[in-house]
Amino acid sequence: MRLRHKPWAADFIKEHQDLVIPDPFEQKGKWQQLFPKEQPLGLEIGTGKGQFIAYMASHNPDMNFIGIEKAESIIVTAMQKVMDQGVSNALLVHENAEDLRDMFGKNEVDTIYLNFSDPWPKVRHEKRRLTYHKFLEQYQDILKEDGKLILKTDNRSFFEYSLVSFSQYGMTLEDVTLDLHASGDESNIMTEYEEKFSSKGQPIYRCIATF
Amino acid sequence: MRLRHKPWAADFIKEHQDLVIPDPFEQKGKWQQLFPKEQPLGLEIGTGKGQFIAYMASHNPDMNFIGIEKAESIIVTAMQKVMDQGVSNALLVHENAEDLRDMFGKNEVDTIYLNFSDPWPKVRHEKRRLTYHKFLEQYQDILKEDGKLILKTDNRSFFEYSLVSFSQYGMTLEDVTLDLHASGDESNIMTEYEEKFSSKGQPIYRCIATF
Repeated sequence: MRLRHKPWAADFIKEHQDLVIPDPFEQKGKWQQLFPKEQPLGLEIGTGKGQFIAYMASHNPDMNFIGIEKAESIIVTAMQKVMDQGVSNALLVHENAEDLRDMFGKNEVDTIYLNFSDPWPKVRHEKRRLTYHKFLEQYQDILKEDGKLILKTDNRSFFEYSLVSFSQYGMTLEDVTLDLHASGDESNIMTEYEEKFSSKGQPIYRCIATF
Repeated sequence: MRLRHKPWAADFIKEHQDLVIPDPFEQKGKWQQLFPKEQPLGLEIGTGKGQFIAYMASHNPDMNFIGIEKAESIIVTAMQKVMDQGVSNALLVHENAEDLRDMFGKNEVDTIYLNFSDPWPKVRHEKRRLTYHKFLEQYQDILKEDGKLILKTDNRSFFEYSLVSFSQYGMTLEDVTLDLHASGDESNIMTEYEEKFSSKGQPIYRCIATF
C-alpha cells in the first residue's frame, strides 16, 4: 500500500484514545473490559484502511473487534471508517505486534482475520509471511480452543503456501473457497483490496482453519 | 465422458491379457510379479483414455504403473496408447473397484493418482466422490507409510471439497497448486481432459497429500 505522510496523523490518533488504545500491552487478558459488552472477540491483523473491521462491527453487533495496524498514515483512515459507522464494538491498535502474546492472553480471541496480508513472495522472506509456522504458534496460543483463523487473499502463491503451512502445523481446514465471489457468500464483508481485485475479475481465495 | 459402444472392445481386451490383467483380485499383494522389474508402484484410479498412464510409464521407467478403468469402450483406447508407447511397466485393470483392498495388499502402492475424477457435484452424491473419507480409508490401507495421493482436477468445487476432506481425515498437504500450468511444472504429464480444459484457459488444480 502506498504510504503518504500525513503530518496530522499522530495528533489525530492521540486525540482518539477511546478508539486507538494507547497502551495495548497493558490490556493483555482484559480487552473485554474496554467494550460496552463482553462478547466474542475478532482480531484483524493488518487492518489497513479499515473497511473490513468497520463493516464487520456494524454487521455483527454481537461481536467485539480489534484491528491492528502499524502504519500511522493508514490507521487514521481506519479510524475515520469506524467512526463513520458509529459503532462501539470496534477498537484499533497502532502497533507493530512482534509477538501477539504480549498483547493478548491465552484463549482471549475467538477469531483471527488475515485479510490480504503481504505475501512476501521471496523465499528468503518466508519468515515474514503471517502464515509462517512461528505466527501460527502465536495464533494458537491467543485463540480459544475452537477459535478460527480466517484468511482471505488474492495472491495465489501465498494462498497455496498458507494451506500447506496450516496443514503441516497440524491445523484442520474447515472450509476452502477458491473463488469467494463466484461462490456467492452473502455474508462476506469486503476489504478495499478485495473490491479492487475482485472488480478486475481476479479470484479471491478464502480458508477457514482451526487448531 | 461420452461412451460410444465398441462391439470389438470385449474381444480386444481378451486378446491382450498381458496388458489388461484378467484376474486382478488374484494379484492382491503380488502385483510386482507381473512386471519385468520390482520398482515403486503408481496406481491411477479412473485411467480413462490412458494418455496419463502411457506417458507416465514412458517418462518414468523406474516405476511400475497400474491403471483401473471400468468402461470397456474407454479402456481400449488406453490399451492402444500404452501399446503405442511400447512400455512394459504399465498394466491395466478393467474393473469397477468397489473396495481397492480386495485388489491391493497393505502398503502395496507407492503413489495413487486421481486425475479429473467425476466431481459428483450434488450433495446427495458426496459418497461417490473419490475423495470421500470412505475412499481415503482404502487409499491409506493400500499405500505405503510415506505414500502419496496426487489429485488433479479442473473442478473448483471438487478441489475445495477434497482439500477439506483430506484435512479432516488427518492427512497432510505436501503441496497445493491452484494453477498448475501457470506454475510451470515441467514434469507434469497431462491427461486428455487436462489438455482440453487447460487450452481453454481454465486453471488446473493439483494437491499432493500424505497420510
